[in-house]
Amino acid sequence: MLTKKELIEYCRNARENYLPHFSIDCVVFGFHEGIMKVLLLQVKNEGEWYLPGGFMLKKEPIEKAANRILKERTGLDKIFLQQFHVFGDPERSKAHFEMYKDMLPASQNWFTNRFLTIGYYALVDFIYANPTRDVLSVSCTWRDLHDLPELKLDHALILKTALDTLRLQLNYQPIGYNLMPKEFTMPELQKLYETILDKKLDRRNFQRRMLGFGILNRSEQPRKGGAHKAPYLYSFNQENYQAALKEGFKGGW
Amino acid sequence: MLTKKELIEYCRNARENYLPHFSIDCVVFGFHEGIMKVLLLQVKNEGEWYLPGGFMLKKEPIEKAANRILKERTGLDKIFLQQFHVFGDPERSKAHFEMYKDMLPASQNWFTNRFLTIGYYALVDFIYANPTRDVLSVSCTWRDLHDLPELKLDHALILKTALDTLRLQLNYQPIGYNLMPKEFTMPELQKLYETILDKKLDRRNFQRRMLGFGILNRSEQPRKGGAHKAPYLYSFNQENYQAALKEGFKGGW
Repeated sequence: MLTKKELIEYCRNARENYLPHFSIDCVVFGFHEGIMKVLLLQVKNEGEWYLPGGFMLKKEPIEKAANRILKERTGLDKIFLQQFHVFGDPERSKAHFEMYKDMLPASQNWFTNRFLTIGYYALVDFIYANPTRDVLSVSCTWRDLHDLPELKLDHALILKTALDTLRLQLNYQPIGYNLMPKEFTMPELQKLYETILDKKLDRRNFQRRMLGFGILNRSEQPRKGGAHKAPYLYSFNQENYQAALKEGFKGGW
Repeated sequence: MLTKKELIEYCRNARENYLPHFSIDCVVFGFHEGIMKVLLLQVKNEGEWYLPGGFMLKKEPIEKAANRILKERTGLDKIFLQQFHVFGDPERSKAHFEMYKDMLPASQNWFTNRFLTIGYYALVDFIYANPTRDVLSVSCTWRDLHDLPELKLDHALILKTALDTLRLQLNYQPIGYNLMPKEFTMPELQKLYETILDKKLDRRNFQRRMLGFGILNRSEQPRKGGAHKAPYLYSFNQENYQAALKEGFKGGW
């Protein structure tokens, strides 16, 4: 929670620079070897947990704003963020309203405004994404999806909606280009899908369906070393992968 | 284009009642027997064509706003509208800005604001949806998707994005509950998919895939009458249809 002096300064700056009534919140999912995490901030004084979010500059395109906000709040740069939903419940920022309403009159008070928030999500490998906290936060960290703290405002709903969107998306679009090594085995790719869906999949069905999408190239050489029969190695076929991102999988309609 | 007097009145009313910087635009697709249309407005004086849109009341939930706006502008009520994207290019309302900027100073001029617009889309049977124009329009009418007028602002992009979203959605969610009669033949359902996708589909593949989704019940009695072998009749299995709307098709992952 900001002090009155900090609040006055923050509100003056916000009114001058940001488009009112709008915020952006980012759900960044991190994956590595069967573990799925999400990037969260714990803010100073309050100690509460939030998704990394912020406000849009008055003339800023929204995609740019999403990337700038994520960078300012977490240090993560050049992340592919995808817009997924606007959250527009008039009561969604009520907690902030209550927190700040007595400190400044409404006409000067940024936080007593109604805010609609645009949700963006991204998928990264958390081994290569080291977040840094900003001045408003005591920590910025990857939290295991199975061990989440309570989230402030409607951020639990935003996170759940992002996860539902991602899981639905597995049915019609490829995923994993920036999460898998250049070459990978079918069980390694299956592990990624199982992690996102949080359930076991049948090995044969997975392989048959995945090959049917036509987005994989099989390497001539199986992986070297190991006592057992060496598994085939696959890589993404860039052309088909990009086409499927746009038009959905072939084998669709 | 509004006269100066109308503009002053419109802006005063808008500033008092609406949340600034936001609008909502609705893409209502209409289907009937292999024809696909979209609902458009032609506005007074300008003669330009728009998607039906409007502004959100200061404390109105956004889903409610979308339905109210569609009703006010087209007369269509109780339509299931689905949010699909926010359009946030800072230049997207430039045409309105240019049109009105000399008539009122910026501080009083609603139309010289930047507007982000939230796109909603819906599917209806146009035989049962008779639009009525509002006071701002000279007509509100179903236009064939293959014979569209030029659209103002970024409304062609909004329409195209809605259509792309709808086509992708066919790959992972059921469609057609409010577009098909209670009982229908497989070729009738195929016709709907072909209309949305604007291409022919293979009859056997369509039937195999559609039955695989488990959202259809087959009637014991084939359709009566006709000289040829009577076709089977199907209806949607409500339980499975609703589940697939939420979780995607089974036979997904």
